[in-house]
Amino acid sequence: MSDLMSLMIPQGFRFAAATAGLKASGRPDFAVIVADETASAAALYTANRVCAAPLVVDREHMAATGGRVRVVAINAGNANCATGQVGIDAAKRVCQAAAERFGCRAEEVFPCSTGIIGVPLDAEKLVRALGTIEVRLGVEDFHAAAQAILTTDTVEKTAFVRVMIDGAEVRIAGLCKGSGMIHPQLVPPALPHATMLAYVMTDAAVEPAALQAMLNAAAERSFNRISVDGDTSTNDTVLVLASGASGVTVTAANMEFQAALEQVMVSLARQIVADGEGVSHVVELQIEGAATEADAVRVAKAIAHSPLVKTAWAGSDPNWGRLMAAIGYSGAAVEPERVEIDFGQLAICRHGGRAAEMDVAAAHAYLKQAEFTVTVRLGVGTARCTFWTTDLTAEYVRINADYST
Amino acid sequence: MSDLMSLMIPQGFRFAAATAGLKASGRPDFAVIVADETASAAALYTANRVCAAPLVVDREHMAATGGRVRVVAINAGNANCATGQVGIDAAKRVCQAAAERFGCRAEEVFPCSTGIIGVPLDAEKLVRALGTIEVRLGVEDFHAAAQAILTTDTVEKTAFVRVMIDGAEVRIAGLCKGSGMIHPQLVPPALPHATMLAYVMTDAAVEPAALQAMLNAAAERSFNRISVDGDTSTNDTVLVLASGASGVTVTAANMEFQAALEQVMVSLARQIVADGEGVSHVVELQIEGAATEADAVRVAKAIAHSPLVKTAWAGSDPNWGRLMAAIGYSGAAVEPERVEIDFGQLAICRHGGRAAEMDVAAAHAYLKQAEFTVTVRLGVGTARCTFWTTDLTAEYVRINADYST
Repeated sequence: MSDLMSLMIPQGFRFAAATAGLKASGRPDFAVIVADETASAAALYTANRVCAAPLVVDREHMAATGGRVRVVAINAGNANCATGQVGIDAAKRVCQAAAERFGCRAEEVFPCSTGIIGVPLDAEKLVRALGTIEVRLGVEDFHAAAQAILTTDTVEKTAFVRVMIDGAEVRIAGLCKGSGMIHPQLVPPALPHATMLAYVMTDAAVEPAALQAMLNAAAERSFNRISVDGDTSTNDTVLVLASGASGVTVTAANMEFQAALEQVMVSLARQIVADGEGVSHVVELQIEGAATEADAVRVAKAIAHSPLVKTAWAGSDPNWGRLMAAIGYSGAAVEPERVEIDFGQLAICRHGGRAAEMDVAAAHAYLKQAEFTVTVRLGVGTARCTFWTTDLTAEYVRINADYST
Repeated sequence: MSDLMSLMIPQGFRFAAATAGLKASGRPDFAVIVADETASAAALYTANRVCAAPLVVDREHMAATGGRVRVVAINAGNANCATGQVGIDAAKRVCQAAAERFGCRAEEVFPCSTGIIGVPLDAEKLVRALGTIEVRLGVEDFHAAAQAILTTDTVEKTAFVRVMIDGAEVRIAGLCKGSGMIHPQLVPPALPHATMLAYVMTDAAVEPAALQAMLNAAAERSFNRISVDGDTSTNDTVLVLASGASGVTVTAANMEFQAALEQVMVSLARQIVADGEGVSHVVELQIEGAATEADAVRVAKAIAHSPLVKTAWAGSDPNWGRLMAAIGYSGAAVEPERVEIDFGQLAICRHGGRAAEMDVAAAHAYLKQAEFTVTVRLGVGTARCTFWTTDLTAEYVRINADYST
């Protein structure tokens, strides 16, 4: 890692990765983040009612500590989900061993898993790898950790921001994984709630309650606004840790910090979409003129989950009638004759019908780009949202039809 | 048509097909059903708020006549949707011309369209074809009509039942089309509501209100229980016509007729799924032990719409973890540790975890069949449903990514 990069990593955290032997590929599959001192923590979990064992343990631990985390232990290659009490025991075994290794309470360990569902997790593989983890811990292994948590991802996903608060520098950095089964529906810990895994570290000092409030707001405009395939995972987790090592205290009212946190989370969320399974086109949806923000999100999700819209995008096909159908069944308040659709700056639909100036060849050329924007104006209100999604390709089918993933 | 087949067609109806020139392929694209005398009629339409022009006209006509239809005029190759007032005018032009040709009121004509959305319909092509239609009208053209309404369908879809009521024979026959954009959400005419088009004829005498009640009940267990791609069309329509030509009067309380009607509609619905775009596996979902029937349907739809589940089926992959994830995010009341899953007679999941007796090789072999059954027992109640769906293949993507369908 360059000296420049190390200046982007929040102070007070060390990272390591190891090969525990869970991935069939034999690649690194175990990442650990250790805070020098117990950090303030806030988390969001998947809304899926079938929820992996580590999430059960995480909620228990966060409740026990009031939002304090020392060690984050993340394995890929096995989701430890639908594994019953055996799965809970396995997650707790890893916590106990990590607590002993790093000198903290088991409740200060935050376990996470991603990979196949329904196969028992061999905790001893992770326990045995803790020795290697301890030796390797350092700031420079940030990227190694970001790589070890990947599954079907093709690239590591990280984001960094530095922000001046009260004349002093605060750093925020994030790492995450996610490519398929991406439609996070993150809810606060009180409810069960994505296999997107995301970790955001900051060296600001922030109390857990304030951190949670800022996480909730930022998640709503980032991870909760993306979808690759509409499948909400059993394991989705977002964790934010604040070490306080910068010496800068941040309160919930601090808009600079909130904006910087959201910037990191939006960057991570967009990286997940861009690396979505089999994706050949990344689409930014701008839904405007909705009666409510919830309606804007309904329209975005109906479009983002329509196989007919997504396959048209795969072929750069300007078949906007499929968009109209999805808008119509979204459940949002819609007056069809008011609907307008643009592809980038190109007028496609006006008054619910084909725009007089629609140029099919230009529309087709625009949709050939790797990234493009589709704007829908409903014309019934002033609410809006931005949402990021993908096309649906034959490659997606190949990736997921392989027996046995 | 064999003499035997002609004995299956309800009395009082004639059929014809012609090539109006709407399909690029040059194949027949216009089908007409004419009742010898004005028939009792009941209809259901798509719940999509973007709703094609013919459906607007159909509702208006059914309201004006109190549920009486003489002529059904169905074109393929153009959906006449998102076409504004021009689309309404085009549908009415066809009705007017058909009314003059067949000697009835324009309001007794029931127009239907299927094909591309957002392209103006050239009504004159249909009007010109009415002469050919009139010459060809007969019982024997039932199959020609069933073929003319097809779009991406690969086979014609028909069903026939004869039932004895009060010692006399009543015939029910249906024809339909549908392959993609299949997730009918049919609602009674009071609400806007699939591009599945289905037409059921009977020679029983049934009053429109009774016919509507029986149609509503039968649709809930047939067309509203299928999904190919989860996209609810702007044009879905189911129309039932009763000629009374058998001389047998049927009331709403007649369970034999209700059962026979449902049998025809379930047969047609299953044929649509079996001919779904790119489908290589047809899946019957049996959802049992739900708290409510609505919850059972929620679980079925979550499974039927999950790209990860559907691509696993394409690969005959017994990855039941994806089923658990879909069950979990369905919104139904679920207690994960009570969930049981069977593939056919094979135990896959017990107590929310892998069944001890699960045999991966046997499960893989079972899922290689062209048709198979997945049973989910939620264990939280006694409600249930049956639902028919498909896998998601690379061929589906190819069919729908072609620029420009």
